[in-house]
Amino acid sequence: MQIGIVGLGRMGGNIGRRLMRNGHTCVVYDHSPEATEALVKEGATGSSDLGGLVKGLAAPRVIWLMLPAGKITEDTLNDLYPILSPDDVVIDGGNSFYKDDIRRAVRFKEKGIHYVDVGTSGGVWGLERGYCMMIGGEEEVVHRLDPILSTLAPGAGNVPLTPGREGRDTRVQNGYMHTGPTGSGHFVKMVHNGIEYGLMQAYAEGFDILKHKASTELPESERFSLDLADVAEVWRRGSVVSSWLLDLTAGALAKDGALGNYSTEVADSGEGRWTIEAAIEEAVPAQVLSAALYTRFRSRDDESFAERMLSAMRFGFGGHHEFSPK
Amino acid sequence: MQIGIVGLGRMGGNIGRRLMRNGHTCVVYDHSPEATEALVKEGATGSSDLGGLVKGLAAPRVIWLMLPAGKITEDTLNDLYPILSPDDVVIDGGNSFYKDDIRRAVRFKEKGIHYVDVGTSGGVWGLERGYCMMIGGEEEVVHRLDPILSTLAPGAGNVPLTPGREGRDTRVQNGYMHTGPTGSGHFVKMVHNGIEYGLMQAYAEGFDILKHKASTELPESERFSLDLADVAEVWRRGSVVSSWLLDLTAGALAKDGALGNYSTEVADSGEGRWTIEAAIEEAVPAQVLSAALYTRFRSRDDESFAERMLSAMRFGFGGHHEFSPK
Amino acid sequence: MQIGIVGLGRMGGNIGRRLMRNGHTCVVYDHSPEATEALVKEGATGSSDLGGLVKGLAAPRVIWLMLPAGKITEDTLNDLYPILSPDDVVIDGGNSFYKDDIRRAVRFKEKGIHYVDVGTSGGVWGLERGYCMMIGGEEEVVHRLDPILSTLAPGAGNVPLTPGREGRDTRVQNGYMHTGPTGSGHFVKMVHNGIEYGLMQAYAEGFDILKHKASTELPESERFSLDLADVAEVWRRGSVVSSWLLDLTAGALAKDGALGNYSTEVADSGEGRWTIEAAIEEAVPAQVLSAALYTRFRSRDDESFAERMLSAMRFGFGGHHEFSPK
Amino acid sequence: MQIGIVGLGRMGGNIGRRLMRNGHTCVVYDHSPEATEALVKEGATGSSDLGGLVKGLAAPRVIWLMLPAGKITEDTLNDLYPILSPDDVVIDGGNSFYKDDIRRAVRFKEKGIHYVDVGTSGGVWGLERGYCMMIGGEEEVVHRLDPILSTLAPGAGNVPLTPGREGRDTRVQNGYMHTGPTGSGHFVKMVHNGIEYGLMQAYAEGFDILKHKASTELPESERFSLDLADVAEVWRRGSVVSSWLLDLTAGALAKDGALGNYSTEVADSGEGRWTIEAAIEEAVPAQVLSAALYTRFRSRDDESFAERMLSAMRFGFGGHHEFSPK
Repeated sequence: MQIGIVGLGRMGGNIGRRLMRNGHTCVVYDHSPEATEALVKEGATGSSDLGGLVKGLAAPRVIWLMLPAGKITEDTLNDLYPILSPDDVVIDGGNSFYKDDIRRAVRFKEKGIHYVDVGTSGGVWGLERGYCMMIGGEEEVVHRLDPILSTLAPGAGNVPLTPGREGRDTRVQNGYMHTGPTGSGHFVKMVHNGIEYGLMQAYAEGFDILKHKASTELPESERFSLDLADVAEVWRRGSVVSSWLLDLTAGALAKDGALGNYSTEVADSGEGRWTIEAAIEEAVPAQVLSAALYTRFRSRDDESFAERMLSAMRFGFGGHHEFSPK
Repeated sequence: MQIGIVGLGRMGGNIGRRLMRNGHTCVVYDHSPEATEALVKEGATGSSDLGGLVKGLAAPRVIWLMLPAGKITEDTLNDLYPILSPDDVVIDGGNSFYKDDIRRAVRFKEKGIHYVDVGTSGGVWGLERGYCMMIGGEEEVVHRLDPILSTLAPGAGNVPLTPGREGRDTRVQNGYMHTGPTGSGHFVKMVHNGIEYGLMQAYAEGFDILKHKASTELPESERFSLDLADVAEVWRRGSVVSSWLLDLTAGALAKDGALGNYSTEVADSGEGRWTIEAAIEEAVPAQVLSAALYTRFRSRDDESFAERMLSAMRFGFGGHHEFSPK
Repeated sequence: MQIGIVGLGRMGGNIGRRLMRNGHTCVVYDHSPEATEALVKEGATGSSDLGGLVKGLAAPRVIWLMLPAGKITEDTLNDLYPILSPDDVVIDGGNSFYKDDIRRAVRFKEKGIHYVDVGTSGGVWGLERGYCMMIGGEEEVVHRLDPILSTLAPGAGNVPLTPGREGRDTRVQNGYMHTGPTGSGHFVKMVHNGIEYGLMQAYAEGFDILKHKASTELPESERFSLDLADVAEVWRRGSVVSSWLLDLTAGALAKDGALGNYSTEVADSGEGRWTIEAAIEEAVPAQVLSAALYTRFRSRDDESFAERMLSAMRFGFGGHHEFSPK
Repeated sequence: MQIGIVGLGRMGGNIGRRLMRNGHTCVVYDHSPEATEALVKEGATGSSDLGGLVKGLAAPRVIWLMLPAGKITEDTLNDLYPILSPDDVVIDGGNSFYKDDIRRAVRFKEKGIHYVDVGTSGGVWGLERGYCMMIGGEEEVVHRLDPILSTLAPGAGNVPLTPGREGRDTRVQNGYMHTGPTGSGHFVKMVHNGIEYGLMQAYAEGFDILKHKASTELPESERFSLDLADVAEVWRRGSVVSSWLLDLTAGALAKDGALGNYSTEVADSGEGRWTIEAAIEEAVPAQVLSAALYTRFRSRDDESFAERMLSAMRFGFGGHHEFSPK
């Protein structure tokens, strides 16, 4: 099947590769000529601008956008709008806010263009393992895309089918799901990432407790010097906390148990934040997911005003001198 | 190898079974004659009291206790103390508090008896999958137990070895680890369970947000009615949040997407609580692990005094009438 | 000074009363004729619709809206827009979202009408104690309103001036503050309410811990049966935790130490939620303010799906039977 | 009344001063001769060791310890034990753990010595404002101490009596309370401090949100540059969040709105930690009090291992390069 791909970064480039390796035809464009050229070398048809990409595709076209959420995606969609034709399909495979999808789909529909939002999980491993996809849009359009989606998906692999799922939609057990109308794909992916933050923080706190068990501030008889790389590895087999994130953690710790190369400043993307906003809109208590997000905020804030204020109050009532060295 | 097992509940019984199926000899005792009898039918030598169990074992003995943490374990160890001999090994495979292990090991050592603490993860699946074990105690004693431990452990299975682990202790990649001196096994298992609480709560909040997205309190255009069983299943393949806990969740949702049979009151065991106490002793911020524990406390408290007090304050300053129907 | 008041509930009615008791003239309207009539009996000029209220005021008019945030406030502003004249002043004294203020002010400015947002704290006590006000808008307009604002404000009272404030804006020490441009008044009031949630929850948790110290689940030697009304009262004098909220709590506990009349379901208004959204927009970690909001969500959710899911997982890995009685 | 005071730091010294200014007689000892000398200059009888202090007091003696909780208090009590006589009273006015009180009182009782635990709030302001005291011990002994306690207490001051308290124990409205048996005084003080952490953090987060509203990372139309000193001052009058902590905050902000002199590292004392442990023992969800404690832990941990681990995982699945500059 023929597809256009806009945005050839870590995710978009590999999506193209996985498709081409499985017999699909790609017309690609990235604002960086080098990124475009790299895919051309692997068999894609390159294009130097959006217009070229559109012209290079047979109608009805299928165009997959894999761009950073926000302005770039919005601008690109605005640029595509006038040059697409009725029955074309635009796929936003990035991490857009689902309310933006709903708004955009309405506009594209006015011109007869189909808008599909795909939440894509898999990171740098997707080329090899396939991408877990959550797809929002019209059923018949999603069906039309099945050759592409089934190729990108991981397939059943060695993960056994959950008992009781016999007779249900087989796409799901192959790692891609039509979640519902436009926006629902990115909504499910958004919550996926919110959960991801929570899982990561749970492991991080646990290993931090293990590590500090060697602290000389504890009584000597209660200190343990634990091999964290071994702990991560042993939990991968037979324990309740085994997971793919734990596999990755075990890999990092096996290289360096102190993780000394890694930053203590942790970025967050929009999806973690939007998950909390969704929880608030729905009045769902999200204690863990919020706490996980906030630890990332705090990790980047060396000059916490809140903490200065605590020191100021402590000085105020107790005369505790906690003055900044600066 | 010959072993005595005291406590034949869900965990202890299956530990005996897994050992016998792999050629070990078991002398067993449970305060319930029926539980003892069940193992005898599968090949164990039964005994009607602790004394009989000790007599039935050749010295130096190996006795595995698989009892509820706290008084029962403590009492049983006290009963064993006078009837054991130097060089015998007592293993506490339950969920004891690690500081209790440290205290007990000192006492047993006075009589030349070895005390080993084993944190055992695997639940009802251990018989089939094997048990992930974290083991505290003297190296030579742990080595002596290797025939038993390697049988109980899951083995490498189809979990690939983490790159960079070549040349390291192979027990770890087979699912059991000598974590360090006495107490360290239960300490690592304790943190394992603390992490487990956090992971579970992260999934629970995420799915709660997905479920409430169908709430009629949201604007109709922003509502999605998501198939949670499908979401859990699709995330099992290729996504960042795949895990064994997610596999179990997918299984439960496949049977009933509303989970209507399950209680909203969630128990907690000592290990979740001790993990927080350890975090506090070490001054490690454990926002997520604590929040996860507290949601369990709250789930069992229908008559929250804290919340009555919020209502009382709201009435006090704002005249908001929030009176109990009772 | 003459003022029009729209909305005569607990807040709006008392604002009118406080103004009239201090020599101001009020033209009032409420969609409930009884509410209007009540104020008329105390000296106001009543009007049966918005148009009548506008006609009853001399230009340039000052109109104070004291309505529930959201649709009612928006509709009323839309109704006022065509019948107001340049240089009139519209004040939104309710709990509107500050971004709505910014949007509305732009529109009103197009017609030369001034829009002022006033965050008003004081609840049912404001009539007697005065209202703490946070005011956003143009300086000259806020200045024009000073006769009204200074009357509504509490004044310095017996609260001593903070050392170091000599020479600063004296309005502040009298309990009202021009916080900045349009929207800033409601923004500051929003954060005020977010803090309020956190303070309330801190007291509520503390008293819950005191109350449960009598629990029969604790060892008898560690139980205390504390008189919570006395505890609240004693903390009001000389302690670090004294506050007006504690005064109110002491009052409620003095009537009934069990607070048996109060609901365990606690409402939340928009401002607590918007505070968290602001924290997220600013990447400020708001662990306590969020946790306080979520306890309110949870207090109203008897059928937590998240907790059912925890039970389902526990059953999945551990065979723990936690089935709903229903 | 005659009293011995051991420990003449910020708290103990001022306790002596307040007693002497009101006609009581003090025999004092501090391990620092200078501290002892300072009180002698103000009228106390100094002593160079514990034995001298005991000899300088008429039996039955009253001795108030005002020492750091933990080893120093424990050692001093051990030193006093052999040189005190039946019917003497030992008061621990520091911040001891209440379970230590219970244990100590049993021992002292064996010799007929009375042990009283007094939780003392008031900080550096106590000399002038008086100390709020929570007192655990035998009723007749607490009664015997009333001349001292009533002098140290703040008295009713200008805080009006809570309606409904007519006819209740008048000590409470004067700022001191006999909370119950030994240990209960420090237990109530412990929870008082737990609440204090929560209140402080609520204000700190709120002001942090106000401060960051000027961040240039926000859209310009949504930025406000708020005068935090003014905000704190205006909330002191008529608002729901007024409190003594807010008064102190207003004072600090009036001097420097950036709080630039204060540390971002915030200490915590045992009582905040013990409060959480008590909550866990009682299964009371303490989301806010825990979160407040953890922010202090985090404030002192520049090299969070947990956060390194988040970065390692992010690199693992997403190739996000977050390497430490070190």
